[in-house]
Amino acid sequence: MTKIGLIGLGTIGSGVVKILKENKTLITARTGTTIELKRVCDLDEKRAEMLGIRGIYSQNYKDLLNDPDISTIVEVIGGYEPARTIIIEAIRAKKNVVTANKAVIAKHGEEIFKAAEDNNVSIMFEAAVGGCIPIIKAIRESFAADKINRIYGILNGTTNYILTKMEEGLSYDQALKQAQELGFAEANPSFDVDGLDSAQKLKILSSLAFNAKIKDDILTWGITKINKSDIKYAKDLGYTIKLLAIAKEIDDEIELRVHPTMIPQTHELANIKNESNAIYLVGNNIDKAMLYGKGAGSMPTATVVVGDIIDIAKSSSITNYYSEEKKLKDINTITCRYYLRPNVLDKPGVFAMIADILGKNNISISGVSQKELGKDIVPITIITHNVRESDMMQAVDQINKLDVVKSKTVVIRIEDI
Amino acid sequence: MTKIGLIGLGTIGSGVVKILKENKTLITARTGTTIELKRVCDLDEKRAEMLGIRGIYSQNYKDLLNDPDISTIVEVIGGYEPARTIIIEAIRAKKNVVTANKAVIAKHGEEIFKAAEDNNVSIMFEAAVGGCIPIIKAIRESFAADKINRIYGILNGTTNYILTKMEEGLSYDQALKQAQELGFAEANPSFDVDGLDSAQKLKILSSLAFNAKIKDDILTWGITKINKSDIKYAKDLGYTIKLLAIAKEIDDEIELRVHPTMIPQTHELANIKNESNAIYLVGNNIDKAMLYGKGAGSMPTATVVVGDIIDIAKSSSITNYYSEEKKLKDINTITCRYYLRPNVLDKPGVFAMIADILGKNNISISGVSQKELGKDIVPITIITHNVRESDMMQAVDQINKLDVVKSKTVVIRIEDI
Repeated sequence: MTKIGLIGLGTIGSGVVKILKENKTLITARTGTTIELKRVCDLDEKRAEMLGIRGIYSQNYKDLLNDPDISTIVEVIGGYEPARTIIIEAIRAKKNVVTANKAVIAKHGEEIFKAAEDNNVSIMFEAAVGGCIPIIKAIRESFAADKINRIYGILNGTTNYILTKMEEGLSYDQALKQAQELGFAEANPSFDVDGLDSAQKLKILSSLAFNAKIKDDILTWGITKINKSDIKYAKDLGYTIKLLAIAKEIDDEIELRVHPTMIPQTHELANIKNESNAIYLVGNNIDKAMLYGKGAGSMPTATVVVGDIIDIAKSSSITNYYSEEKKLKDINTITCRYYLRPNVLDKPGVFAMIADILGKNNISISGVSQKELGKDIVPITIITHNVRESDMMQAVDQINKLDVVKSKTVVIRIEDI
Repeated sequence: MTKIGLIGLGTIGSGVVKILKENKTLITARTGTTIELKRVCDLDEKRAEMLGIRGIYSQNYKDLLNDPDISTIVEVIGGYEPARTIIIEAIRAKKNVVTANKAVIAKHGEEIFKAAEDNNVSIMFEAAVGGCIPIIKAIRESFAADKINRIYGILNGTTNYILTKMEEGLSYDQALKQAQELGFAEANPSFDVDGLDSAQKLKILSSLAFNAKIKDDILTWGITKINKSDIKYAKDLGYTIKLLAIAKEIDDEIELRVHPTMIPQTHELANIKNESNAIYLVGNNIDKAMLYGKGAGSMPTATVVVGDIIDIAKSSSITNYYSEEKKLKDINTITCRYYLRPNVLDKPGVFAMIADILGKNNISISGVSQKELGKDIVPITIITHNVRESDMMQAVDQINKLDVVKSKTVVIRIEDI
């Protein structure tokens, strides 16, 4: 019998309450152990009332930490604070911790893992990345004997939904509106569409896969500048645009980036549609593996939160958090192929000006197309050969300063996974 | 420090030896524990010599079972016997067991799990299904809190490779030959192409996912009768043909079958190409999840074998094997849509005869096509509405007895996953 304290009765927390209640018999039969929800905490007492658990409600989380019967605290309130404080205090009170909080693990993971080791308790966070996709367990347990050297993740459901709908013909604004109506996107969608959510998750995945302490910020580009014509040109070229989170370990250097990426339509990740998430791993021995599923949602996420609780209840959780300082590759030194769409006035000589800038920055062009679409803006699209990031950023900066340029050039990296 | 005994130095066994040697430091750092290969066993001493481990070689597996230092036996010889005997004896000698042996787990799982519980040791078998795909762990641990109610698996790399190549234009014989040349298919490919390998794996997956004892044989059809025109017609209709292993739990009845299946081209499983494997799960709470990867091969498989060893070394393995008797659905009572291709002589009235048989067996036709392909055999293809299996089998039997029928009618079930 394991007694747990649950902090947070929102989307995920209420899912945890439901699963523990409805699947009680199944869980006990399967695992040989019983999990009892001893006490819950939320700022809003009404939430406990609606779930029929007012009798075990506390407004103060310290009541849960001070309860000697409770051996595991489940934190599902999200955000940096007070989540971090609660987790650290719970660990110091010798409680195991299960959390679904990507923000706090991405930012304070090192501190939290250290505290867990010092206090000989477990910290589990499967739900922090990829919803119900068991990627943390795959990396830490199933593939523990392998060296993972590449991660390509579709880690954000909102942006993948928007890009899928744009492929189906909607504009960015229409697709975003639809995502908001369906509850996939927030009223202020910046955290998702600017790539910040994906970047947090990538930090967690890559620190586990590469056993690395990752402190620096990583290159993070969102999808707001992509329009229907980019999607169409990508398609014509045999590519699909995805917001990819990319991590590579090459010669002890780690390369991390989140950006819209053209990937071949035939790649397994190209077929991950709508709000689904997927993580594609490349390892020395496993070659390749992909895990796919619901990246968010109350019940999918709550399922793996309870999975973590069960692991702890069966003492089959991991308590080892080995990591070392690794050098983050200077993003200016990476090379890849690029797709460029400068927004230029239709004047003679415009392309020559752009080609001149590219040439002077050591950028060689592999393909160009120019099609009539709007009234006075003629989208020129350019595909380059392999180019150094710093050269490309300098060239784009120079292009954007041309008088004939109406708005910022759209830049999409091409990844032949 | 965990000391292990390894029985079998073939493809997987030699991979295990390599990984334990080459990734020793990584494994120790990641898991906080050390795994030592204490003794190995194989009928062929030369294999040990080639791996540079002649010093720890025994020809008799009992040497490993009698070694009190060895706490875990790794069985990777495959097949029913002596594998079953070795596993049971190892368990009785209070050794934990890791195996990659699908045959023995599919057939003797119940006996083995019972023995493991009685002797309070672990039996782990991640590599028995789907090579490096961590599907056993996903079902038993990550999704332990959910009720899985559907499994759709591409569980055999050989047949998936053949079907992929047939989509690309090869004949069945050409594709099989290529698979054999590449080492994906055996000289006698029956075990793969007749679906037996998939059926064994499906038994393991469904018994775990549904906590069910499955003793009966399951419907198992192979891919040998499918030809290029079936693939082409499927494509025209928006389908892809896959050898699917299907398991459903509906109202406490379990439905299990392995057969060539037309699935929509847009489904995630349709894009699993070549020798890859994938398992698509549907659960009450997780909705859907898919795991994809290398279904075979020395290093991918050995990686998850070592993953199992690590789980045992860290005492984070599962020792609970709850299951109950469940009723296997009478296959005659299932319903689905069917694709039929009777091989008939080109005579007037032939289609009317077939339509008459279908009608008399309560089978309603949703579409028919007849295209000129060969000289005297005109492939009629028929798509039906939902039909009871027993009605369809009776109708097919009657069609095959018609004088105008030159060879057995090709039957492919359609699954709108």
